[in-house]
Amino acid sequence: MAVELKCDTLWTGADIATMQGGRYSLIEDGAIAVQGEQIVWIGPREQAKAIRCDRTHNFAGGLITPGLIDCHTHLVFGGDRSQEFEQRLNGVSYSEIAAQGGGIISTVRATRAASQQALVASARARLQRLLAEGVTTVEIKSGYGLDEESELRMLRAIRQLGSEMPVDVKATCLAAHAFPPEYKDNPQGWIERVCQHLLPQVAQEKLADAVDAFCEHLAFSPDQVSEVFSAARALGMPVKLHAEQLSALHGASLAARFNALSADHLEYATEEDALAMAASGTVAVLLPGAFYLLRETQRPPVEYFRKHGVPMALASDANPGTSPALSLRLMLNMGCTLFGMTPEEALNGVTLNAARALGCADRLGSLEVGKRADFVHWQVERPAELVYWLGGELPCETIYRGEMR
Amino acid sequence: MAVELKCDTLWTGADIATMQGGRYSLIEDGAIAVQGEQIVWIGPREQAKAIRCDRTHNFAGGLITPGLIDCHTHLVFGGDRSQEFEQRLNGVSYSEIAAQGGGIISTVRATRAASQQALVASARARLQRLLAEGVTTVEIKSGYGLDEESELRMLRAIRQLGSEMPVDVKATCLAAHAFPPEYKDNPQGWIERVCQHLLPQVAQEKLADAVDAFCEHLAFSPDQVSEVFSAARALGMPVKLHAEQLSALHGASLAARFNALSADHLEYATEEDALAMAASGTVAVLLPGAFYLLRETQRPPVEYFRKHGVPMALASDANPGTSPALSLRLMLNMGCTLFGMTPEEALNGVTLNAARALGCADRLGSLEVGKRADFVHWQVERPAELVYWLGGELPCETIYRGEMR
Ligand SMILES: [Zn+2]
Ligand SMILES: [Zn+2]
Repeated sequence: MAVELKCDTLWTGADIATMQGGRYSLIEDGAIAVQGEQIVWIGPREQAKAIRCDRTHNFAGGLITPGLIDCHTHLVFGGDRSQEFEQRLNGVSYSEIAAQGGGIISTVRATRAASQQALVASARARLQRLLAEGVTTVEIKSGYGLDEESELRMLRAIRQLGSEMPVDVKATCLAAHAFPPEYKDNPQGWIERVCQHLLPQVAQEKLADAVDAFCEHLAFSPDQVSEVFSAARALGMPVKLHAEQLSALHGASLAARFNALSADHLEYATEEDALAMAASGTVAVLLPGAFYLLRETQRPPVEYFRKHGVPMALASDANPGTSPALSLRLMLNMGCTLFGMTPEEALNGVTLNAARALGCADRLGSLEVGKRADFVHWQVERPAELVYWLGGELPCETIYRGEMR
Repeated sequence: MAVELKCDTLWTGADIATMQGGRYSLIEDGAIAVQGEQIVWIGPREQAKAIRCDRTHNFAGGLITPGLIDCHTHLVFGGDRSQEFEQRLNGVSYSEIAAQGGGIISTVRATRAASQQALVASARARLQRLLAEGVTTVEIKSGYGLDEESELRMLRAIRQLGSEMPVDVKATCLAAHAFPPEYKDNPQGWIERVCQHLLPQVAQEKLADAVDAFCEHLAFSPDQVSEVFSAARALGMPVKLHAEQLSALHGASLAARFNALSADHLEYATEEDALAMAASGTVAVLLPGAFYLLRETQRPPVEYFRKHGVPMALASDANPGTSPALSLRLMLNMGCTLFGMTPEEALNGVTLNAARALGCADRLGSLEVGKRADFVHWQVERPAELVYWLGGELPCETIYRGEMR
């Protein structure tokens, strides 16, 4: 096979889990030719001899995977809730904490009080920890502002993080996350405000890549979610949904009807939901961090997703209340240990299927010609080690848009 | 208050969770005066003005805790078991894996085949990850050699790690860990070999600081453990025990009768065991990593330990089979989330009580005058944050024996 190609850099000397087709699709002793930001050739190193390259980088062992993608986070918020976490472990009840102004409303208060710069500064430190473990694309949601000005400020902070840091940031408007205190007796009023005022402005300023909502007894009803989704789709924005976390409202099926990118959490999803998601190509985003921290026992129906071909992704759900998780590697382990995924499914869940959940699997998520050169070099021998080691740093080097980060 | 003291370095500018008495015992805006390896003064910074110091180090914020102590690890071993981990998640049964030569016996085979240098090299990389999170003292056990020569080689590798790396390493002889293949039908023969030949040599060469055993239906009986403990005590070595992990054999009470430093795991310990441990001052070392990975449901009786004043410690149990855990911070979170400890109990469990479990609470585990200057500076505002954040790196700087590591 004669290959005649020009490239900036030829990356060699490691095995490659390309994740093509959502499988490891391993290339032993592989090479990746990168021109600009793009992969122009990938294959066994011995077949790369005819490629003319300005420079060659030899890793001398180890494993390359696609850059990791965290497709569900709430990384931007004011304050933290470690004090409340400690109170709960000391036996203070949820209702006592709520009476003291704790819970999500304390995060809303702190977020409203924070300037855009303050939001960016605190999120930057958290995002840095995800990046240290090879994350090259991250989704971040609004949803702690819960008034128009604060939701917009959160989205601008998310855009600022994307422009300042070496990571691809996707912004999601989650204005329908919880009842704003001003609307606690009139949530429908907030939904109307969101649909008629906030979303049009978000769309006009291109502040979000998708629209999300929280469908649950203690949050918004399926009907209210439908209104938000209709408004979003009319504005040309794709949707996704927090669904079936604590009870079965068939939000996942609702999301599928709107061709949602993903339905997330899904502990209480049914086989019917799985069938609807499979038909619409909606990704099941599983969030084991919250499951673990809340000591839940109802696992998401991984068997149904497998049986019906629903793509599964895994994400950190990084948030101050139910999942202060800053490690996708830990989520890989939890996806396997707590949800019974295989290591290959788990790795697919933070690469190709995570890219699908963000609507960018055409450019990201696996290593193949034409996709962006986002990849990670790990000092491990086989992919399962990324899942197996529990906590601690696992040394890695990240190549983002074709350059060492 | 007039303080007239001379010291090498005055460390200032952070709050200090001294862990005196096993509580946070916080000093706001504190200072630590260190002369040589020792703390010679600790208190509020404003009271430190009269101390004459060669240099001052100002942290400009954050929190200081004692150096973390991991009091139960199996960090030295050959090979790893990520392949077996993946097989299990792909539905291969334990018996099929055993038939292929998997399980602990594969680690024994790889450990026997490894030179002392190879054991040190692979363990060094793992130990480095614990150190990155502020560990200043670590216990490491033998127990994968299971023949005299290989057990001694493991202990020498452990001593070598202690002499080469900037961490205090305590070595434990765990020859009674599992049945050696050569003694699988005659475990009593191995126990006699251990008592009559191995332990005397270990004692003579000072290769271990304590002697451990695994008391379980599938390992050694209480009678066999008694023989090992009698031999150890006769040689002047303290003992500890893997007890009550999978069933109730009252190994914890047995350990208490031998004034064991600790009894470890303890999922099936009873109130009677707790009373015996309290009377002998035996520390309950809880190991949530294995509990999590094995998806166990029987929690150790934290309530009994609390009620009867049994000191509780937390450790990684780092091992290739049931807890490939390389993060004490994750164990802090799991101790709280899975076992219901409070963050203060958890932090005590990796500082003062961990020092007790290693018999060195007179010199380590809390920050007070006369103790060794091992401490960690964290970029957090309050101790609960060390427990709250789930995975990911938490930036820290470690001071070991009075010097920045
Ligand atoms: Zn979420
Ligand atoms: Zn152990």
